Amino acid sequence: MVSWKNFDTLASYNKLMALKGRINLVEVMSGENGAKRVAKYNVPMACGLKYNYAAKLVDDEVLSVLQELADEAQLTEKYRELYNGAVINTGEKRLVLHQLCRSQLGEDVMHNGVNKREFYVSQQKKAADFANKVHAGEITNDKGETFTTVVQIGIGGSDLGPRALYLALENWAKQNGKQKMEARFISNVDPDDAAAVLKSIDVSRALFIVVSKSGTTLETLTNESFVRDALKNAGVDPSKHMLAVTSETSPLAKSADFLEAFFMDDFIGGRYSSSSCVGSVVLSLAFGPEVFAAIMDGAAESDKLAKDPDIKKNAALLDALIGVYERNALGYLCTAVLPYSQALNRFPAHLQQLDMESNGKSVNRFGEPVNYSTGPVIFGEPGTNGQHSFYQLLHQGTDIVPMQFVGFKENQAGMDVVIQGSTSQKKLCANVVAQIMAFACGKDDENPNKAFAGGRPSSIIAGEQLTPYSLGALLAHFENKVMFQGFIWNVNSFDQEGVQLGKLLAKRVLAHDTDGALKAYAEMFEI
Amino acid sequence: MVSWKNFDTLASYNKLMALKGRINLVEVMSGENGAKRVAKYNVPMACGLKYNYAAKLVDDEVLSVLQELADEAQLTEKYRELYNGAVINTGEKRLVLHQLCRSQLGEDVMHNGVNKREFYVSQQKKAADFANKVHAGEITNDKGETFTTVVQIGIGGSDLGPRALYLALENWAKQNGKQKMEARFISNVDPDDAAAVLKSIDVSRALFIVVSKSGTTLETLTNESFVRDALKNAGVDPSKHMLAVTSETSPLAKSADFLEAFFMDDFIGGRYSSSSCVGSVVLSLAFGPEVFAAIMDGAAESDKLAKDPDIKKNAALLDALIGVYERNALGYLCTAVLPYSQALNRFPAHLQQLDMESNGKSVNRFGEPVNYSTGPVIFGEPGTNGQHSFYQLLHQGTDIVPMQFVGFKENQAGMDVVIQGSTSQKKLCANVVAQIMAFACGKDDENPNKAFAGGRPSSIIAGEQLTPYSLGALLAHFENKVMFQGFIWNVNSFDQEGVQLGKLLAKRVLAHDTDGALKAYAEMFEI
Repeated sequence: MVSWKNFDTLASYNKLMALKGRINLVEVMSGENGAKRVAKYNVPMACGLKYNYAAKLVDDEVLSVLQELADEAQLTEKYRELYNGAVINTGEKRLVLHQLCRSQLGEDVMHNGVNKREFYVSQQKKAADFANKVHAGEITNDKGETFTTVVQIGIGGSDLGPRALYLALENWAKQNGKQKMEARFISNVDPDDAAAVLKSIDVSRALFIVVSKSGTTLETLTNESFVRDALKNAGVDPSKHMLAVTSETSPLAKSADFLEAFFMDDFIGGRYSSSSCVGSVVLSLAFGPEVFAAIMDGAAESDKLAKDPDIKKNAALLDALIGVYERNALGYLCTAVLPYSQALNRFPAHLQQLDMESNGKSVNRFGEPVNYSTGPVIFGEPGTNGQHSFYQLLHQGTDIVPMQFVGFKENQAGMDVVIQGSTSQKKLCANVVAQIMAFACGKDDENPNKAFAGGRPSSIIAGEQLTPYSLGALLAHFENKVMFQGFIWNVNSFDQEGVQLGKLLAKRVLAHDTDGALKAYAEMFEI
Repeated sequence: MVSWKNFDTLASYNKLMALKGRINLVEVMSGENGAKRVAKYNVPMACGLKYNYAAKLVDDEVLSVLQELADEAQLTEKYRELYNGAVINTGEKRLVLHQLCRSQLGEDVMHNGVNKREFYVSQQKKAADFANKVHAGEITNDKGETFTTVVQIGIGGSDLGPRALYLALENWAKQNGKQKMEARFISNVDPDDAAAVLKSIDVSRALFIVVSKSGTTLETLTNESFVRDALKNAGVDPSKHMLAVTSETSPLAKSADFLEAFFMDDFIGGRYSSSSCVGSVVLSLAFGPEVFAAIMDGAAESDKLAKDPDIKKNAALLDALIGVYERNALGYLCTAVLPYSQALNRFPAHLQQLDMESNGKSVNRFGEPVNYSTGPVIFGEPGTNGQHSFYQLLHQGTDIVPMQFVGFKENQAGMDVVIQGSTSQKKLCANVVAQIMAFACGKDDENPNKAFAGGRPSSIIAGEQLTPYSLGALLAHFENKVMFQGFIWNVNSFDQEGVQLGKLLAKRVLAHDTDGALKAYAEMFEI
């Protein structure tokens, strides 16, 4: 049996705290020793990716304590509990099964007589069959015209993950003949969001996916209604254009208002739901079911590697441990995620939700306050764009922000140009490696304004090319990293009670059931 | 004469530090006292906007010390020096004149015999005339067809500000018959960025603006070349499709490769350059010159209000002071910018550059290290989207992140829908006010996992509608806020030496002039 203990009650906690300040990054990354670190501090990941942590504030001693922590906190044992179907989401008393969409890592997981792996596979197959029929022209609009666009209507996890994945593969799909339909996304309750999307497409040839587990998400139902109006105005029958992705018990599940319904369950939270039909329906329609399947295969390979208790062979586990070391021993609040790939331009926004909503908690799994820092603030933009923006602070600001770079040797679109003896892609890669070293080692200068102190830690995930397969590996890597960190902090990474109070007060505002400051604020907007 | 002193040498510094912990936000914002604060702690801004700081950790005593600080640090006097043409950018020995694009706030600013206001106005007029001719079909492509798309090629300030402004007004322009041309942006050296944009437009009917002050920005020149190839492949003469926005001394200035060149100078940094021809050319082409002029008018009104030494009448000054109080006295590293307007979806990315590149410094104006924290980490996404993402951490995480909300009573696109008795726009506004109160006051619950401690400070900028005019006011508000904060921290907010080292090392990587870790990293990408 695993034992759930607060981080600061572990013997390895104090050992880890005592390690603060032992590494001079400028020193260890300079000269040939630096090259040795790059060769040594490298973990193979799924799908040919590598996790290199040479420029992190670690050495063999730190790694040894991190291994102790991993063992003492029983991190891979807890992962095994999770994938074998334990009630890991204690707050909501739910299993946590997103990995099971990708593959079965352990025992059969049964719930109410249903084999959950079979359930998830059946929904993927349903999405695949539906997508194939749409692509083959067997499912069309009223006039018998093929559908050309798919629009996902969802918010939070029903939006950020699927959107990030879609954008990550759009160029790749066009280049490889896999783009079956354009995809768009409507999320915000701001009516201008839906209006802009609807103005930019031919609604009479669009399929709309309403994504809401409960079938009661305010933003999504509002946008659904917005879209139904637009379809009626376009002279078509909304029920022939709308799909539901929801739970089997939701009001959307059996409604005649939808052409088809695909089912999710309570065991996959929004921010982990790209692997469920929240992702499979839109991505299978956009790129074909085999592309979605390749994402799942990449993720499954990551999930399998995450079982290894040896931190030097388990990139997700090591990434998690280093992050905790930075957060708790070194006291760094933020982490910047910096993909050198324009295709990953919304991946940081997905990770921002994944990480901050999972581990931004102040109580442990048993509802008791914890006395240590938990989840970090995550932000990021693609490189090289960020270099011309907020990197100034990362290089020369008064606080240290650890960084997580991502880069690929090849680009996706098959177009490039040689300027000054190198391709754009080579320039992109040259920049990411240059940044790692500039942050780590800095540069002396007699003018302090031009000096760089260095000592700013980063890691990099490097790969050959961003493909469905490597994208899946990347997705699962971060999910597993966040899961392991949640285990260390002893928080429940799978609920989100912090989103409730705002919803409640918004309802009171709309019902004019307010007083005091809330009423005064509402009057500012004439509500 | 103004006196430039380090923040911690001011008498008001110690007074401010001593105020930490005096406000219990839950208490002061509860009941009728909370309503009084909302009424009282409110500053009218330009263009009908309001800055409301009732939910900040201030009271009359804190405000009184902040006023002392503003006076002692001579903040508005320093602003006067700036707009009168002093060499405020000490590192690069340059004037700082972005406000002069909007209006002349003080004396004539002459440089090398040129009246700079006249210079900026002449360039705006040149952009306006050019745009009018394009819209009238007097300037066309080789076949005599009108141009339908304008593509800005630039990075950092040549991208983020103009892009954020364009997206902020796209819906408004379509609704108000002001959309003259679609605009697109190419920024990243990643070749997939340019490829994706070029695949999505008809290049034979597109104008491309190459934006680089020096004419040597690697990313921009690379993308220029990429685009020239695409134009040649489309069978058109690139020189008839390309415009330059650059300095008069740059290699691009007099080149026959461009249909027209528009000029900027050294006195407006990239992140402040939306008001220069970096913004005027693309926005005048997209929306017409009068829309750009309205943005400038709104900004000018903000600039004028920023002259007032009374912090209760000067929103930019007060916003700056409260931010410094939060950063230095309360020790908060981050600030979240949360616009409840989908149109402002890239405004946080602009502010991230504006703020972090301006004040992410560790040395003062004289190149001496400072002993206090400077610029914060800025991040944000539009609401309500963020509510379903990272707000969990903002509500219940172990660290406090101050917030800056923005909201408007009316939406832009003129489409809305009534669900459950309210429009989407009302729901959007109800959510922003609900969030302010949820963060400020929290909620007790016997289950600590469902409890909210509150005490999380925020302000809101509220307006009628996001229009060119109010957008200009918003843009200038934040520029002036950042400027005042730079004055308090005694840093040079107008250089960015922190971006240089990475560029230098990237060149060495491309020249194979590397050893040690840098060489080892480069080999990971086969460079």
